[in-house]
Amino acid sequence: MKRTKLLIPGPVELDSEVLLAMARPMMGHRTPDFEEVLEECWRLLREVYQTRNEVAIITGSGTSAMEAAVASVIKEGDEVVSITGGKFGERLAEIASAFGAEVKRVDVEWGSTFAVEQVESAIAESNAVAITLTHNETSTGVLHDARAVGKLAREYDILFIADCITSVGGDDVRTDEWGIDLCITGSQKCLAAPPGLGFVAVSERAWEVITNNTRRRAYYLDLARYRKALARGTTPFTPSVTLIYGLRAALKKIEEEGLKARIERHRRLAKATREAARAMNLELFAEQHCASNTVTAIKIPPHLSDDDVRGVLKREYGILVAGGQAQLKGKIFRIGHMGNVTFADLVQVLSALELVLKKAGHQLEPGKGVAAAEKVFSG
Amino acid sequence: MKRTKLLIPGPVELDSEVLLAMARPMMGHRTPDFEEVLEECWRLLREVYQTRNEVAIITGSGTSAMEAAVASVIKEGDEVVSITGGKFGERLAEIASAFGAEVKRVDVEWGSTFAVEQVESAIAESNAVAITLTHNETSTGVLHDARAVGKLAREYDILFIADCITSVGGDDVRTDEWGIDLCITGSQKCLAAPPGLGFVAVSERAWEVITNNTRRRAYYLDLARYRKALARGTTPFTPSVTLIYGLRAALKKIEEEGLKARIERHRRLAKATREAARAMNLELFAEQHCASNTVTAIKIPPHLSDDDVRGVLKREYGILVAGGQAQLKGKIFRIGHMGNVTFADLVQVLSALELVLKKAGHQLEPGKGVAAAEKVFSG
Repeated sequence: MKRTKLLIPGPVELDSEVLLAMARPMMGHRTPDFEEVLEECWRLLREVYQTRNEVAIITGSGTSAMEAAVASVIKEGDEVVSITGGKFGERLAEIASAFGAEVKRVDVEWGSTFAVEQVESAIAESNAVAITLTHNETSTGVLHDARAVGKLAREYDILFIADCITSVGGDDVRTDEWGIDLCITGSQKCLAAPPGLGFVAVSERAWEVITNNTRRRAYYLDLARYRKALARGTTPFTPSVTLIYGLRAALKKIEEEGLKARIERHRRLAKATREAARAMNLELFAEQHCASNTVTAIKIPPHLSDDDVRGVLKREYGILVAGGQAQLKGKIFRIGHMGNVTFADLVQVLSALELVLKKAGHQLEPGKGVAAAEKVFSG
Repeated sequence: MKRTKLLIPGPVELDSEVLLAMARPMMGHRTPDFEEVLEECWRLLREVYQTRNEVAIITGSGTSAMEAAVASVIKEGDEVVSITGGKFGERLAEIASAFGAEVKRVDVEWGSTFAVEQVESAIAESNAVAITLTHNETSTGVLHDARAVGKLAREYDILFIADCITSVGGDDVRTDEWGIDLCITGSQKCLAAPPGLGFVAVSERAWEVITNNTRRRAYYLDLARYRKALARGTTPFTPSVTLIYGLRAALKKIEEEGLKARIERHRRLAKATREAARAMNLELFAEQHCASNTVTAIKIPPHLSDDDVRGVLKREYGILVAGGQAQLKGKIFRIGHMGNVTFADLVQVLSALELVLKKAGHQLEPGKGVAAAEKVFSG
């Protein structure tokens, strides 16, 4: 099978150290040896999360961590404010509804972000017990202001549930400073670990709510069980030992690079992508002031199809970028520049994109996109 | 770190082909290439499940699959009959309670099995919509009669939810013939795949119940979402691509060995373990007529501690066997002979066990246990 270069917003390509770590023989999961591995993961996770809170490690996709966060604090009939504006923001609202919450939506135009006043009045007019936000909205390439929402959550004394699945480890996520009570992330995005692990960093006040919530509808995804296990240095259910090996190797790579340098790399990649897109006469989907640093959404030029861009990129150049989701299907494509992506990786897709667009009849000057990206990196 | 030999009831040791499959570079999960991998997994899973039903592949521990099965068909206030008799049988009952079901328990003595009449009257006296059973109870080493429960479920027209986590792939599980509507298993047991994947084979009548159950409290673990995705040849959430690579490699090994031969191997290993234990003057925990073929529970001799047996086995011989769980902690130890375990692997633990017991002052004739096991394999 031909190797495909991945520039999608997860799962991302893994370092060979991470891949090989997963070929390591199985360990008993209730042994001191394995608990050492877990301890190291927890320590390193707290660093990327910028938190002192405990972090639940869940074997499951990112959505399992979203469900764990919501289902553990919510009970039927609770009011919840959900900021939407994309597929994943919507998902948090849907999960809250699925567990019986009355969801008050703060609808945000896809590609844009919210006004703080809009969020404040939604909270003020409700009896909400929690507010949900997707920090970096992967479906639209928008980065929302989690700090501002955290501030409101404190003022109104409600819980702040933030999906930071495509920001933790790639962009600045100050869990404690911003007051994120349930900070969710996943393994296969900016952490550059294998898919299949979800994480929730839980604040003290969230633990209190969980402990007092006797009507939670959860078992495997009941965070109270994770807390009990955390106190014993373990996980409540058999974790994916293999994925934990991979996670530890990936977190060590992050420590080596340094979180600050890593975030700076992501910001430069994002800026280079945006500048290159503009230089190719492409229109960005997200507004400039709220553009994501880990994924860039670009409009498919009029008269071109998804296949003209993504199909040809895949078939002729072996490069996979993501398409649009939900109502954006066929309208945008998305370049994931998260995890281990380097400038060299980015140049591959930008150059191939120039060729693909040119071939499809899109108006552009060859090399101009790449040059714009180079300028960001040399500047 | 010293390598430990695992003879625990999961996670089990993996073949090197399985380990190395997981070192393979990441694939996009929404691509035809990956869908081919999934297709092959589904085909091979249906074979070990002996079913024509569709099989949901969930990224999560075995318990996540238990929760998916229960939460998808149950709504608050439903009556459910749960056959207990061990930690995992109890767990199914606890999950049903967590999701608001009125659970009617058929309590079975740990180490023993149920009388069919006992189960029948529990069903007859209730308005149950479902019955739950743990087919092979890992905590006690008991194999329950799933066929008999399936028959009752059909007669009373209720759903049969069976946890076959430590039987599918190691013992005979006739999902269709026995009428198991939601047949649950996990990756890290008899399938000898890495931990982190759960499976539910879902019958047509179970799908109907799920579709009509508008009050289910689930999202990530909502089987309706898995069905929709199955129709498109994919999974509803990002699966653990790495673990799916490992699963496929493990399922291919099962196909190579042949399911019938594999089950026969497990039965011989179990018989050899039991005969050896008796020859060492050890008492088996489970009654003979309902002894498991994948895990054997043995009583720790009076005056000996868990550490005298398991601790010394681990420290001096590098062999890990499992301890007792819940009320059996310190009272039994359990040898897992599931997955890839061979006669040669079993002899290692049996011989070491003779040495360990002898040293601890237990009365036995050296070599007699191993000889009893050899007899089973030569006979």
